[in-house]
Amino acid sequence: MQTFFRYNWMVREEWYKWCEDLTEEELLKPRVGGVGGILKTLFHIADVEWSWTMGMVGKPDFQEDFAEFSSLEKVRELDARFRLEVEPFVLSWNEGMERNVFTEQQPDGSMAANAWGEIMRHMIAHEIHHIGQLSVWAREVGKKPPSANVIGKGLVDNLPGKV
Amino acid sequence: MQTFFRYNWMVREEWYKWCEDLTEEELLKPRVGGVGGILKTLFHIADVEWSWTMGMVGKPDFQEDFAEFSSLEKVRELDARFRLEVEPFVLSWNEGMERNVFTEQQPDGSMAANAWGEIMRHMIAHEIHHIGQLSVWAREVGKKPPSANVIGKGLVDNLPGKV
Repeated sequence: MQTFFRYNWMVREEWYKWCEDLTEEELLKPRVGGVGGILKTLFHIADVEWSWTMGMVGKPDFQEDFAEFSSLEKVRELDARFRLEVEPFVLSWNEGMERNVFTEQQPDGSMAANAWGEIMRHMIAHEIHHIGQLSVWAREVGKKPPSANVIGKGLVDNLPGKV
Repeated sequence: MQTFFRYNWMVREEWYKWCEDLTEEELLKPRVGGVGGILKTLFHIADVEWSWTMGMVGKPDFQEDFAEFSSLEKVRELDARFRLEVEPFVLSWNEGMERNVFTEQQPDGSMAANAWGEIMRHMIAHEIHHIGQLSVWAREVGKKPPSANVIGKGLVDNLPGKV
């Protein structure tokens, strides 16, 4: 589980760096699909990861408004602040937590119960999915997106005998 | 690991069904980003999953040419054929296989060694990333994409006491 989070954080950092070469206009421009923009997507990824973590550990979540974080610097700062709470939780993950249940009221008043193991996989896939959307928009602005490869990032020490 | 594959296969099936409402022109139309088209992406996802599996189990891989599979029906048939070899491998997965090593010659003649655990995660993220791209193109053709949510698909039996 941790490997996927490390992968996501690594890729996200590459996207933040990639964004440094974009104008504010390109970062904020409304786009077709997903949450509708490059910076808004990165904000959304960090926000969703943090909100699920807060839910599982039983801490209060608040609804962030993108309007207050509409610069690359502000999103990176928010993400770094969130990471302080998300990372220890992810690093503490073990299989015994798979079937813990997080119950949450839905907008329609009903209750939804989800296993922590399912939520963690949801968080992982959520980011990868949105990064896929960014990669299309990257080509639209004429720039090569960061690699989405899992292999080649040194995430697993794969040399035989070096384990 | 299996949960993510089941998620991917479920989502892929939803995309195949989603494609049934598209014209052949929309399915084959060149698009910006990724591998450049809707059907080509689904072909690529199935092909890459199969090729890595063949590599790990030591069976011969062949280079499929999309030109020979350029209809929804043909891609689905190819995927079903591939699944017969991919699924048993995925279902046989256990942690003892994490650090098996697959060594492969690269186009430049060098050798690349990757841990099976890393390859499996690469296969998982590869599909989710490309599905994210499809979701942007779906909006471009004016249609709602299938949900990418991991939660709510019944992938983990999450009711307490029902384990």
